Amino acid sequence: MAELALISALERSLRVRGERVLRALGDDAAVVRARPVAVTSLDTVVEGVHFRLETHTPADVGHKALAAALSDLAAMGAEAGEAYLGLVIPATLTEDDALALMEAAEALAERTGTTIAGGDVAGGPALVVSVAVTGWAESPDRVVMRDGADPGDLLGVTGELGGSGAGLALLDGVEVAGLDAGTREALVRRHRRPQPRLAAGRALAVAGATAMIDLSDGIATDARHLAERSGVSVGLELDRIPLAAGVEAVAAADGQDPQALAATAGEDFELLLCAPPHHRGRLERAADAVDCPLTWIGEIVSGEGLELRDRTGAPTGLTGFEHGTG
Amino acid sequence: MAELALISALERSLRVRGERVLRALGDDAAVVRARPVAVTSLDTVVEGVHFRLETHTPADVGHKALAAALSDLAAMGAEAGEAYLGLVIPATLTEDDALALMEAAEALAERTGTTIAGGDVAGGPALVVSVAVTGWAESPDRVVMRDGADPGDLLGVTGELGGSGAGLALLDGVEVAGLDAGTREALVRRHRRPQPRLAAGRALAVAGATAMIDLSDGIATDARHLAERSGVSVGLELDRIPLAAGVEAVAAADGQDPQALAATAGEDFELLLCAPPHHRGRLERAADAVDCPLTWIGEIVSGEGLELRDRTGAPTGLTGFEHGTG
Repeated sequence: MAELALISALERSLRVRGERVLRALGDDAAVVRARPVAVTSLDTVVEGVHFRLETHTPADVGHKALAAALSDLAAMGAEAGEAYLGLVIPATLTEDDALALMEAAEALAERTGTTIAGGDVAGGPALVVSVAVTGWAESPDRVVMRDGADPGDLLGVTGELGGSGAGLALLDGVEVAGLDAGTREALVRRHRRPQPRLAAGRALAVAGATAMIDLSDGIATDARHLAERSGVSVGLELDRIPLAAGVEAVAAADGQDPQALAATAGEDFELLLCAPPHHRGRLERAADAVDCPLTWIGEIVSGEGLELRDRTGAPTGLTGFEHGTG
Repeated sequence: MAELALISALERSLRVRGERVLRALGDDAAVVRARPVAVTSLDTVVEGVHFRLETHTPADVGHKALAAALSDLAAMGAEAGEAYLGLVIPATLTEDDALALMEAAEALAERTGTTIAGGDVAGGPALVVSVAVTGWAESPDRVVMRDGADPGDLLGVTGELGGSGAGLALLDGVEVAGLDAGTREALVRRHRRPQPRLAAGRALAVAGATAMIDLSDGIATDARHLAERSGVSVGLELDRIPLAAGVEAVAAADGQDPQALAATAGEDFELLLCAPPHHRGRLERAADAVDCPLTWIGEIVSGEGLELRDRTGAPTGLTGFEHGTG
């Protein structure tokens, strides 16, 4: 593959958005007029580790790599700014594959107001996509970190969980009798094309969320991260986790508990957040204003770690699941 | 390898520098108080493509990956700020190897005032290091791009060229009778441990450089990039290229022309710059103030592309070398 020709073709698929990007592509580095606070994350996905090309098209990979990085910005309440894509393209992929990957990333960039402002391309033994994203905020106190949860805070989650894990199970060949085609397609799409909750993240940050994290590893793992960083205990009622349509059927067919699937499979890229009870109404209205479901699933208490509770609120005795990302 | 344990170990090797980094590591994203202009680049290096572990230790790879990215900031005249490292670690590397890689990057970060503020770690089939770096400038007109060269400008280069290519030739087994051990070591080190010209880049930007690019692919290729972006012709006198000590001996032993080696082997990470003749003295003093050699090697003329000239200033008829990075 002619690297410079491919880079030119990739660059032609990209557009600069907004007035802040003074130079994107074609120079040693991109140049961007900054806002007061930069919020930056780098995510790397590797063929055979994070995805397989048997179940993901190059376009799926391009979308998902950027979505995962943007989800980190969502969890900070930051506004998406620029993305930088580093591609390692194996010889088994064609130039069209590489273009499809970039075009899918560019389509997500367009929908989220992001400019893909740079990156590079190299050959290598497997498809690897590194995405650095920079988001912006007007002041440090508008940024929500993982460590701000206090005892007494409510624990909430956006959207519905388990859809990505159920979609992966379907891609892995789990047979579910009677699952309608629309539900199946929605679950698979949920796994391949997750949508970062950027608008909800900003709205919840403004409305008073004290701590936030995106659900990439699964709520059981990510809630523990939040608990550890905040120095508190997260009490999470498993039965209150909102399940995506079809998760129960897929879990049953796969011999799994649906709540366990939803809590551990990961890659839903929803937001887990904490807020004091007196902000509950504000947060619900903020989520509603951006058409984002918000469900209260527990509370923050003194102590440390994660406590999973049953539907009566009593501790299950479990302290969480093992990390189980698909 | 236990990913979370490794991440913890890697994080312990890192330090935050300065007051601007409000949150590094351990959250969804890093949070940094911005300066007016952000300058960002992402570079990816791949085992077997950009380096081999037979000739580079993991520490060399960590150093060089960060150095290459910082060199892009140097070429913009930006001040180094934060770096984000995405590591793909094959099973053949140990946790100590990964730590040595990160510690070498951290040592370079310390010397350059950079904070390694984030990143991630994954498994994979080969060692891949993606480095995103953000540098900062006080205003857009303090940033030097590739497209500002005008006819009549002088063409200058920092430091000495060919050292990295000669070092690679030595690592590849070229035997050079009579090459003293100190020179040999310096050439090999030049290849494995390049130093980004951050101080020189800033000083030259302030002193009036109109265009700048770092020499990663080799001056023959990089000068053509600058010419294309500026819409001018670069007239470069091959015999005026300053050669690193030992390059002539290595080139002779390898059957190469030393100027051709210096112009094409790449990875010297020196800066190529343009400036109007009336700023010549200012630029020389600026380079001298940061102990950086500066050599004038040609001029910008109307036209397009790259013209390589012999010692009389007459065109050689050559229009450049093929891309030849080692």
